[in-house]
Amino acid sequence: MRRVVQVIRVLPEKADAYRELHRNVPLPVLDRLRDCHIANYSIHLLGDRLFAYFEYHGDDLAADLAAMADDPATREWWQRTAPCQRPVEEAAPGTWWADMEQVFLME
Amino acid sequence: MRRVVQVIRVLPEKADAYRELHRNVPLPVLDRLRDCHIANYSIHLLGDRLFAYFEYHGDDLAADLAAMADDPATREWWQRTAPCQRPVEEAAPGTWWADMEQVFLME
Repeated sequence: MRRVVQVIRVLPEKADAYRELHRNVPLPVLDRLRDCHIANYSIHLLGDRLFAYFEYHGDDLAADLAAMADDPATREWWQRTAPCQRPVEEAAPGTWWADMEQVFLME
Repeated sequence: MRRVVQVIRVLPEKADAYRELHRNVPLPVLDRLRDCHIANYSIHLLGDRLFAYFEYHGDDLAADLAAMADDPATREWWQRTAPCQRPVEEAAPGTWWADMEQVFLME
């Protein structure tokens, strides 16, 4: 299992909309996440930062992320969430959610 | 089980020292964490932000956090890590690591 932790900004005026959207994530989006070997997925907010934590149980994360991006329900979902978000300034060019570096683990 | 997610700043000039400290956390510190019903604890870094995620399996988090603060090995450890850190600006007065709000969970 591999932990994936990512960060992104939320536009302050869109934080409430982002919360509201996530109270009722479409089931096909959740199904696709599970099909892509993702579990124990949570998103956390403070100020203008969103942190996402999930556990990846597959053996090809890039392929599974591509499969998510290829899913119509997921793409529609991202069209609703993306207007709330902006990459953090540390994000590599072209990335949306920015990967963080794991510096400590106690299992 | 309750997920606890917190954020703090790392001083840029201390990020390497923070990484290095966490490559070799003293065993009594890890033992105390486990005794305090904490598991699956990881810390992640990007830019000047540290993001901590852990899972709490006890039934009195405040008491367990107090027990950690009462442990000599943990206090000594915090004396080494605290100079690397500063609270984020959104932190409530007097808090160190700032609690984040969970806005999404898929178990």
